[in-house]
Amino acid sequence: MTTSRLFSFVGGTSGVWKVRSLLRVAGESLPAVDFLDVRSNDQTATDGLWTLRGITSNERYVTRSEKTQLVEKQEALGRPDATYAALIPIRKSPAWWMLTQEERREIFETQSHHTAVGLEYLPAIARRLHHCRDLSESEPFDFLTWFEYAPQDEPAFEQLLVKLRSSIEWTYVDREVDIRLQRASNRSA
Amino acid sequence: MTTSRLFSFVGGTSGVWKVRSLLRVAGESLPAVDFLDVRSNDQTATDGLWTLRGITSNERYVTRSEKTQLVEKQEALGRPDATYAALIPIRKSPAWWMLTQEERREIFETQSHHTAVGLEYLPAIARRLHHCRDLSESEPFDFLTWFEYAPQDEPAFEQLLVKLRSSIEWTYVDREVDIRLQRASNRSA
Repeated sequence: MTTSRLFSFVGGTSGVWKVRSLLRVAGESLPAVDFLDVRSNDQTATDGLWTLRGITSNERYVTRSEKTQLVEKQEALGRPDATYAALIPIRKSPAWWMLTQEERREIFETQSHHTAVGLEYLPAIARRLHHCRDLSESEPFDFLTWFEYAPQDEPAFEQLLVKLRSSIEWTYVDREVDIRLQRASNRSA
Repeated sequence: MTTSRLFSFVGGTSGVWKVRSLLRVAGESLPAVDFLDVRSNDQTATDGLWTLRGITSNERYVTRSEKTQLVEKQEALGRPDATYAALIPIRKSPAWWMLTQEERREIFETQSHHTAVGLEYLPAIARRLHHCRDLSESEPFDFLTWFEYAPQDEPAFEQLLVKLRSSIEWTYVDREVDIRLQRASNRSA
C-alpha cells in the first residue's frame, strides 16, 4: 500500500495547526486545546490532551457519475494558499446504523443531497473523510471530516455547513464538534 | 454498548475449537495450527501462532426485505448441536474497492445473488460476518466469516460455498483460506 489510510488528529499544546475555535454543535464537546497535529499512521500518539483516529475507506454512497465529478473537481490537500482548515468529528445515532444501506443512501442523497451540496463547493474546499466506527469497539465519533481552504473561502464553507446541518441526514447526528484552524508558522506554542 | 463487536480468532496450540482442516483457496495460506480460539474484544492476544481480528458492523448491501428475512430465519451462534464450525477469511482485490457502492451491490446481489443464496441455507447454518479492512492500515484479510452448523449439515455448507465461489463476486476474491473446526471437549491439546 503506497498511501496512508490511517490518520491521528492530536489536540494539545503543539502541532502544525493553531486552533481558532472549538465549538460544540451537538452532544458532548471535546476539551479545549490550542494546537492540533495531523499524523499519518501514528499508532502511539500520547503527547496530546486527546487523539481522534480515523481511516480513509471506499465510498459508501456516491454513484459513478458523482465519483467522476468528484475526481474531476476536487483539489488535493496541502495547497499553499489553503491556510485555513476545519476538523468536524460527528457521530450518528443508533437509529441511523440500524437502517439498511439503501435507506441510508435515500436519506443521504435523495433527501439531503449530501454529495450534490458538497460538489457545489469544489474545488475551493478540499476535503478528506475518515471513518472511525469500525476501528474499534467504541470510538467517540463515527466520522472525522477534514477540510482545507483559503481564508476568503470561509463564508462559502459556512454556507456548506448550514446546508448540511439543516438536512434530514443531520437529524441522525447526535454528536458534532466544529474545530477551526489556521496553519501555524511553527510547530509549538 | 451491550454486545461485543470486535473479535479475535487466535490460531495456536489451544482453544475451544479443534482444527479439522486448513486449506488455501486463493492467494497466500495461513500457517497450520491445531486449535482455534474465538475471543471477544481481546486486544492483546499474543499466545497463538497467528491472530485475525474483525469487527461486526452495519450491513452494506441487504435490502429491507432481505434484512427482515435474515432476522426471521437466522439462528444464534452457540447452539449445542452446532458442533462444527468454519472460519473463512477472504480478501477482495483493489479493483473491487475501486467500484462504487451501487456497482458492488449490483455484482453482490443482482449478478451473484449472495444474500439470496445465503438465505437458502438458513436456519441450518448460523453465520457472523466480521469486517477487517478498516480496522487498521494493512489487515491481511477484508472479511472473516464465521459459520456454525451440525455435522449433518456439512454437505449443505459445501453446496453454499460452491455456489458463492462460482459467482461473479468471487472473481474479485484474491485471497481465501478455508478452516474447518469442531468443538473441542477441552481447551488444550
